[in-house]
Amino acid sequence: MKFKLGVASYSLRKFNIDKTLEFSKQLGADYIAFKSFHLKLDAKDNEIAEAIKKTEEAGLDLYAGGVIYMRSKAEVDQAFEYAQKAGMDIIVGVPDHELLPYVESKVKEYDIKLAIHNHGPGDKLYPSAESAYVLIKEMDPRMGLCIDIGHTKRIGRSPSEDVQNYFERVFDIHIKDVTKAAPDGSTCEIGRGVINFNQFLDDLVELGYDGVLALEFEKDGDSPFIGMAESMGYVKGILSTIE
Amino acid sequence: MKFKLGVASYSLRKFNIDKTLEFSKQLGADYIAFKSFHLKLDAKDNEIAEAIKKTEEAGLDLYAGGVIYMRSKAEVDQAFEYAQKAGMDIIVGVPDHELLPYVESKVKEYDIKLAIHNHGPGDKLYPSAESAYVLIKEMDPRMGLCIDIGHTKRIGRSPSEDVQNYFERVFDIHIKDVTKAAPDGSTCEIGRGVINFNQFLDDLVELGYDGVLALEFEKDGDSPFIGMAESMGYVKGILSTIE
Repeated sequence: MKFKLGVASYSLRKFNIDKTLEFSKQLGADYIAFKSFHLKLDAKDNEIAEAIKKTEEAGLDLYAGGVIYMRSKAEVDQAFEYAQKAGMDIIVGVPDHELLPYVESKVKEYDIKLAIHNHGPGDKLYPSAESAYVLIKEMDPRMGLCIDIGHTKRIGRSPSEDVQNYFERVFDIHIKDVTKAAPDGSTCEIGRGVINFNQFLDDLVELGYDGVLALEFEKDGDSPFIGMAESMGYVKGILSTIE
Repeated sequence: MKFKLGVASYSLRKFNIDKTLEFSKQLGADYIAFKSFHLKLDAKDNEIAEAIKKTEEAGLDLYAGGVIYMRSKAEVDQAFEYAQKAGMDIIVGVPDHELLPYVESKVKEYDIKLAIHNHGPGDKLYPSAESAYVLIKEMDPRMGLCIDIGHTKRIGRSPSEDVQNYFERVFDIHIKDVTKAAPDGSTCEIGRGVINFNQFLDDLVELGYDGVLALEFEKDGDSPFIGMAESMGYVKGILSTIE
């Protein structure tokens, strides 16, 4: 199988959309998820159209938007309108718990998936994938997860086990490495931290994961290029041994 | 086994020694081979001492110098004096054929290895590792090769087979990828070209190669950082699956 490699544009939050697209392409990514820095949540139709055009010209698939916080019905409405206009398949989101039934109704109305993003220790809403899963498991099957494996590791859980346990609801994965399996662990170049990517990617092959692996590199915001390149190279190197 | 990863400083020929050391360290290399851009062949003793000090402070092992061309006995003398003062174990060199017996005498005198570097099609002296091997195979066992796998591939030979065939004389390996197994192939990010690194590194493990793998990235001379990082990441990713 061939993995889909992407970039979560939060990694390039200090750079404009042009540089973000150019560098994601240079990295060899085929998919991109826009954070609001690169396409504002209240963008006008022509701004969205312009972003779509640029993304297509760069040869990238704008498959998702996020992370998008939803604290009111109005914000849920906005998120789904935004995702629909931008042609996104997935909203990587953090909706307030009490809004989940409303989000579910929107998922049904728009046929756009919600992938709840876990932010690890300190995140009161969704510290782990499990904390999201238990709330959506009885809902529409398009209500699911974007598992952030760095935050998963920081909270002392196994990325492989979480992906396996909630597999049918895992729509997206944010890949990164972290310096420690502890709350004060921080993002580092993939391969230099505590996550065993060889094992993790092997497990994804075993599971038949066919979503995107989106690199979210939080480190070196002012100049993330070298760290992102090393990280992507590392993942591609492993994939060359198992694909 | 654990491979020794290094940088051939030709990759950073547009940058000074400080940037070269800093970036090699940032890449996670432990070894460095200086090209004359970073330590001139006619450097004075105090300049060599300064370079050694900086390299040590960066935590890098200055294991080799090169590629050093030797077209006269005076240039051979200079190369060995230079390597000895800089504490290098290996001269990665291109001596004129008729100088090989003289080089051998210097190898014995200084106990410093010579590793002849192949430059592929267009190189009149040493187009392939074989072309060097046949000339030195009966000489002192410290007369050997630095196999450049990119140039090896460009001349239509197998890097794995060449390393295997001349194994006891392979003291150093320049790693890179190339766009084509043809004379007009050029260096590209490792993993994006035609060399199967997964297979090659597997073969090196099998052979028990314990020299350095030195990244020589010829592309993007004005800004090689991103390509070098991706390349090193790719190699490390594969190594994580076999080490």
